[in-house]
Amino acid sequence: MEATDALFSTPAMMDVWSGAARVRGMLAFEAALARAEARAGVIPTAAAEAIAAACGRDDFDVTAIFHEAAESGTPVIPLVRQLTARVAGEGRDYVHWGATSQDALDTALALAMGQAFDLLARDLMDVGESCARLADRHRRTVMVGRTLLQPAVPITFGLKAARWLALVTRQMRRLREVGERVAVVQLGGAAGTLAALGVAGQAVTAGLAEELGLGVPDLPWHAERDRVAEAAAVLGVLAGGMAKIATDLVLLAQGEVGEATDGTPGKGASSAMPQKRNPVDATLALAAARLAIGVVPVVLGAMAQEHERAAGAWQAEWEAVPAVFRHTAGAVAHVRASLRNLDVDAARMRANLDATNGAIMAETLALALSARIGSPEARAIVRELASSARARGTNLHEAARNDERVRAALSADAVDRAFDPTMYLGSNDWYIDRALADYRALHEDEAPSAEEMPNA
Amino acid sequence: MEATDALFSTPAMMDVWSGAARVRGMLAFEAALARAEARAGVIPTAAAEAIAAACGRDDFDVTAIFHEAAESGTPVIPLVRQLTARVAGEGRDYVHWGATSQDALDTALALAMGQAFDLLARDLMDVGESCARLADRHRRTVMVGRTLLQPAVPITFGLKAARWLALVTRQMRRLREVGERVAVVQLGGAAGTLAALGVAGQAVTAGLAEELGLGVPDLPWHAERDRVAEAAAVLGVLAGGMAKIATDLVLLAQGEVGEATDGTPGKGASSAMPQKRNPVDATLALAAARLAIGVVPVVLGAMAQEHERAAGAWQAEWEAVPAVFRHTAGAVAHVRASLRNLDVDAARMRANLDATNGAIMAETLALALSARIGSPEARAIVRELASSARARGTNLHEAARNDERVRAALSADAVDRAFDPTMYLGSNDWYIDRALADYRALHEDEAPSAEEMPNA
Amino acid sequence: MEATDALFSTPAMMDVWSGAARVRGMLAFEAALARAEARAGVIPTAAAEAIAAACGRDDFDVTAIFHEAAESGTPVIPLVRQLTARVAGEGRDYVHWGATSQDALDTALALAMGQAFDLLARDLMDVGESCARLADRHRRTVMVGRTLLQPAVPITFGLKAARWLALVTRQMRRLREVGERVAVVQLGGAAGTLAALGVAGQAVTAGLAEELGLGVPDLPWHAERDRVAEAAAVLGVLAGGMAKIATDLVLLAQGEVGEATDGTPGKGASSAMPQKRNPVDATLALAAARLAIGVVPVVLGAMAQEHERAAGAWQAEWEAVPAVFRHTAGAVAHVRASLRNLDVDAARMRANLDATNGAIMAETLALALSARIGSPEARAIVRELASSARARGTNLHEAARNDERVRAALSADAVDRAFDPTMYLGSNDWYIDRALADYRALHEDEAPSAEEMPNA
Amino acid sequence: MEATDALFSTPAMMDVWSGAARVRGMLAFEAALARAEARAGVIPTAAAEAIAAACGRDDFDVTAIFHEAAESGTPVIPLVRQLTARVAGEGRDYVHWGATSQDALDTALALAMGQAFDLLARDLMDVGESCARLADRHRRTVMVGRTLLQPAVPITFGLKAARWLALVTRQMRRLREVGERVAVVQLGGAAGTLAALGVAGQAVTAGLAEELGLGVPDLPWHAERDRVAEAAAVLGVLAGGMAKIATDLVLLAQGEVGEATDGTPGKGASSAMPQKRNPVDATLALAAARLAIGVVPVVLGAMAQEHERAAGAWQAEWEAVPAVFRHTAGAVAHVRASLRNLDVDAARMRANLDATNGAIMAETLALALSARIGSPEARAIVRELASSARARGTNLHEAARNDERVRAALSADAVDRAFDPTMYLGSNDWYIDRALADYRALHEDEAPSAEEMPNA
Repeated sequence: MEATDALFSTPAMMDVWSGAARVRGMLAFEAALARAEARAGVIPTAAAEAIAAACGRDDFDVTAIFHEAAESGTPVIPLVRQLTARVAGEGRDYVHWGATSQDALDTALALAMGQAFDLLARDLMDVGESCARLADRHRRTVMVGRTLLQPAVPITFGLKAARWLALVTRQMRRLREVGERVAVVQLGGAAGTLAALGVAGQAVTAGLAEELGLGVPDLPWHAERDRVAEAAAVLGVLAGGMAKIATDLVLLAQGEVGEATDGTPGKGASSAMPQKRNPVDATLALAAARLAIGVVPVVLGAMAQEHERAAGAWQAEWEAVPAVFRHTAGAVAHVRASLRNLDVDAARMRANLDATNGAIMAETLALALSARIGSPEARAIVRELASSARARGTNLHEAARNDERVRAALSADAVDRAFDPTMYLGSNDWYIDRALADYRALHEDEAPSAEEMPNA
Repeated sequence: MEATDALFSTPAMMDVWSGAARVRGMLAFEAALARAEARAGVIPTAAAEAIAAACGRDDFDVTAIFHEAAESGTPVIPLVRQLTARVAGEGRDYVHWGATSQDALDTALALAMGQAFDLLARDLMDVGESCARLADRHRRTVMVGRTLLQPAVPITFGLKAARWLALVTRQMRRLREVGERVAVVQLGGAAGTLAALGVAGQAVTAGLAEELGLGVPDLPWHAERDRVAEAAAVLGVLAGGMAKIATDLVLLAQGEVGEATDGTPGKGASSAMPQKRNPVDATLALAAARLAIGVVPVVLGAMAQEHERAAGAWQAEWEAVPAVFRHTAGAVAHVRASLRNLDVDAARMRANLDATNGAIMAETLALALSARIGSPEARAIVRELASSARARGTNLHEAARNDERVRAALSADAVDRAFDPTMYLGSNDWYIDRALADYRALHEDEAPSAEEMPNA
Repeated sequence: MEATDALFSTPAMMDVWSGAARVRGMLAFEAALARAEARAGVIPTAAAEAIAAACGRDDFDVTAIFHEAAESGTPVIPLVRQLTARVAGEGRDYVHWGATSQDALDTALALAMGQAFDLLARDLMDVGESCARLADRHRRTVMVGRTLLQPAVPITFGLKAARWLALVTRQMRRLREVGERVAVVQLGGAAGTLAALGVAGQAVTAGLAEELGLGVPDLPWHAERDRVAEAAAVLGVLAGGMAKIATDLVLLAQGEVGEATDGTPGKGASSAMPQKRNPVDATLALAAARLAIGVVPVVLGAMAQEHERAAGAWQAEWEAVPAVFRHTAGAVAHVRASLRNLDVDAARMRANLDATNGAIMAETLALALSARIGSPEARAIVRELASSARARGTNLHEAARNDERVRAALSADAVDRAFDPTMYLGSNDWYIDRALADYRALHEDEAPSAEEMPNA
Repeated sequence: MEATDALFSTPAMMDVWSGAARVRGMLAFEAALARAEARAGVIPTAAAEAIAAACGRDDFDVTAIFHEAAESGTPVIPLVRQLTARVAGEGRDYVHWGATSQDALDTALALAMGQAFDLLARDLMDVGESCARLADRHRRTVMVGRTLLQPAVPITFGLKAARWLALVTRQMRRLREVGERVAVVQLGGAAGTLAALGVAGQAVTAGLAEELGLGVPDLPWHAERDRVAEAAAVLGVLAGGMAKIATDLVLLAQGEVGEATDGTPGKGASSAMPQKRNPVDATLALAAARLAIGVVPVVLGAMAQEHERAAGAWQAEWEAVPAVFRHTAGAVAHVRASLRNLDVDAARMRANLDATNGAIMAETLALALSARIGSPEARAIVRELASSARARGTNLHEAARNDERVRAALSADAVDRAFDPTMYLGSNDWYIDRALADYRALHEDEAPSAEEMPNA
């Protein structure tokens, strides 16, 4: 319950995991359970109706439920107590029939995760939209390609955005897959046999799932938490993906680079330094991603659960799973905000390319020369020209134009072409087109994607 | 390079990530690249043949390659130097043509991950085999079901094994999925445009993939590491799953429980205490799982990579990715060893059930009574009987038989039935059958699995 | 902001990190800064008085401050805006004079950490009190010593409690040390030079520290976060220590062990299973410890901060540092609650010892025999007797008494002594006395402790 | 056992944790134990001499020891077997007398940690030396102060180096403290009572400590791992500190910044791009720090150990503790290498300052104006001038000189002074002097340090 929570999440995601929402989820379980049991002939229909009616009331004391949880070790005991007090007639005897506390908590978790994945998918599609727009618009905007933060060879800003886009598209697919896998009910009773339901276990499980729009799992999963762990893990990858984009954004906004900044009016002003324009959203995205990833090993480590219900490991999930969703949502939302109004400065990109004094085209020159005089000699010449140009602060293009050996091998035109970054983009367009096509296929839910295309 | 490495991995998995194997992987890349470039008309066929021939030599100085890597920051530069020195004729000019160091390292990584996933799948299938055997054989072996390490209601050991089995089956599916997704080449050149290949980028990429039996990715993934991160994350979930099984095994072997122990002769003897029988494999599995999970956030955190190639985050993967594979393999292998010769003591299981003095059947008694006198009153009676029996150290069954209120509601037979654990197993058989069926479907590669069966 | 937060923390610790408290901390900084600047002649005294008066008002809109923080990337900008609006006259021009946002946030952090360490120390002393009581009372209560959860040799429950106590004592010392190190102001201005204060930097820093009862750090620490990281790390160790105690408590409460349970009335009852008595506090302590430890690498990883203020890493601390304090406090508080009313069942401890059928005394017998017939032969005999006793389910004491070889070497009395656990406790008393003495020395703040006594 | 291990550690640190060294450590324990027992009259002197002599032999089969460890779960059992086989006469009966496997492993761990901390301290002092040199030499080298990677106000490179230095100095103190705390023997016997030593436990423990030059702990610490956890935690903080310095170094070396680069000849050359100069050591330091920090939560999480010896958690330490030392050593060594030949480009620093077109001096101008016309008005004017200058790409200094309002408030000289970065360094010198003094005090082992100076 940090004061700063809102900085690293979204209001909608915080709502999904609020106490009130979690109580609603457990009540939805209790109502659906009663109905399914009535349909299976386990409890009287009137009892089920009375229970379902009580579950619909909005006067549960949420604070008391979580407060009293410290006594019994689970919020379900006080919740069932409050629910029972609200049920009329004999229904009272059938509240929570045959179920265990964990059944209510875990099924509510499955429902909450469903909503949470939907929220994430929505924001993530928006991120994709921005990336697609940037990839398309800037497919010919040349800029410095940077490896280990050193200038390497030219790329386009469209390609950078296309790589972000492909990352987003892949994460969208992962979210869908895991979202389906976790959308299953939990119903096992005291120790996972559903013994209290006698022969009706299968029917009640199916009915419960149908009532709630969830799937039937292979087996109860009280102490086998791979579904939950996978959800956390996929979110960790997503958060890491957002951190990649945000890292690029912070670096592009750097004073000495200045190639792209968040253009949202009023964002990132500094009190003390009027000239500053802080990349606020990218910064908060990076922080949120760190927080999200930090929770993943907690959930993974908590898989080592004892026997039929864990003492400690499971309970840690109650806090950890909402946290990983909240912070991942924060990372996605801040990247989304950051990209929405991104001011791309194509002129500055070109200027930064030119500021390398031709050095960034050294590879091109070497390649052009190699074709004529062989690779080793070509590289030796270029290395010599580049280091002397760097030492003297002169331009490599000029130096190449004036070098006897280069002139012997290449025409003036060929030298100029070697120094034209727009001529040295290789598969740039192919990549951008693939990223766009694959992203668009998402919308159509097309099964076969370019992502994992078989070779050839 | 810990002395204890072998305790937490397997020889085969350690081989996959050895320096020699990694060099072989990079040479496989260089050979395949040359061939693909020759096929695409980028380099002369004779050059490709010379390069491929040199790649097949076994006289590379592996130690020197990794030693010199500290100078250039990558093992590929010394490797290419050694390779070039071994190439005859003009082929020398075309070694590593158009590629960047990371292309070699990452494609070799994809190859190694493929082998590593195969190894894991093999050992994991063995774990599944043991679980399936135990689930089937012990489907009627009753034992105490334990929640928060307290006796809850009876279960069967078959069901416990079936839950392990279902966990294993789900992980097998995850391994296959991610295994396919990471099996793609990396080819992007200096900054991910394949500019040095001109218009031949697409053809060379497809050729390279075909040569190596890998897929073509949507885009180069130099700085977008979600594939690698997903692999690590899935391994973390698998390691966590192994830790769940190993936790149960250590607890079942406990002196005071003694329900199942590793029966491998000679394992776990203690020097000082001849009476001891330590659960060595389960213990080492737990340690290996902790180590594996610890690496996952390193890989996730390393996704925040700068621009076209990261300074630090990517390099951390070189050590972290092998580590997560090695330790996960250790966890799987130790669980496998532990289950293979598991001595299950069904009599002790029954004795431990009986030692609860009937208390574990309290729920059954309460249910039987509820059907007659309503849930609240039934629970009150049972609670009273149970607490008085516990206080006096007497048997709840006895107490129930002699209680007037119980006798008024239930026949002597009905009371006896309430205290028969074999009569209170609910969906036990259904679950075991599902787990077995789902596991067997794995072998047939049947797409539709019971795992995520739609409801109804 | 999880619904379950209260389960894994304490109300007092949650208050320390509430939005209101954090705003109060920042206002304390602003007031103290103004006073220190007035004393140093940097701003008019009247201005300082007006600022300090406004800082004392209780009508700040805390929600708005954290809400608006998302715009500027820091809560200080809206806070300073609200403060300025509340300052009368020319004081308005001197609000936050020469400081940067981080100065306010970090100094408030130092103040909050001070309070938080005090809270932790208080609860931890209570844990120590319980451990000391148990150590003293049970110094002769023999029980099974367990290694790898197997019976090893006898110990006393007093010794187990003494080991917990020594752990607590060591942590108390660590808390005090780190508590002093983090209790320093942060004042560096825009980029850590205090340039806006001209030559008055040193005087203002000293004055600020004096006003707040904090120390003067060597240098501003905007981007060097080792103090904060050390605090998190020490808390992680403390949380791990609590997890050790809680692990023992959960295991002692196990159905099959039953040697110690939480005796607090009403705690841990189960709805479905009236016979159950769940170790609720130990369980929640384990969960809280997992959550606390999970945050530590986030804070450590966030030390990689860029230049004079980080983009992302620092901001992650805003959420992570309170979290590690909150969850560690939860772990300590639950261990404290668990130990306070611990029901120790000395008879059950003895019974569990006896249930090993003498096997646990095998080492003693081997030692007694070794003195007479040499170690290898002694061990061979004991191993044979122990394994045959185990196989037949008979008592090792009986078997030893009747064995010819044993009788030849040892008198009947000597054999009986070898099987008396109270005769085989070695340094038990010495250890318990040391743990008690060292703990008591804490109260007297005695510098030289037994903890790291020089040898000899 | 990664091929890449050497990239992320140092040869000396790898040696400390090699199998051979770990065996030597355990043999040192066995020899010292025997001698201490002989001195205490527990075993015959001749036996101790025979044992010590055998421990000095260099023909132990290290590979076999760790290989066989997989059978017994500990390397000590095969080691004791090999040792016993090498002991002459009756000494054979007294090998490992009264000790448990963990005593040997943990005491050897304490010895190894002592050597490891010494190695770290040595390299870290070298880092300090470089920082001190840079701090002193560049105390007047002005450069851009950067917050959130945006230009803020001027600082000096000397100050940046002084902040690194202060960080190093603080870590040196932490290393010394924790180094002393972990330098204690472990001796508890089978379950921590030293029962097999009868009344001689205290004397043998003291003798063992004296033989090995280690301290006597308060109590055996078989399952209370706070000392080990603290060591890992302190290393995590140190690794994080190295990552801070390395982050700055990578960013200073950036193409667009170019203010400092590693000047070691031959380092960081790129095969494909002759113009590149990769910051290899800083990059590897960042990777090593990530790896080191990743291990910390493994060690902390492993504190939750069961009873008298853990099943899994302790064993994880065998791999994790060496890893955290190795990788931290790697981080320190690469930072050391990076700083040793750092090429500082003071002219480029100044040029980058000037390239902000005066914007970085906006705060100074605002302050100067504030003194005359009040802060709100001053800020409004500066904000307007700055934004119009930025929009038009003109110089703020020029704009200020020509603005009527500014001219009315400030003389031309005053305006020029406001734009002179060397005039706006505040406490720069004070800070640098403190950092140097505090570092030098380290050498003299002066207890009272400036680090946590009381206020005033």
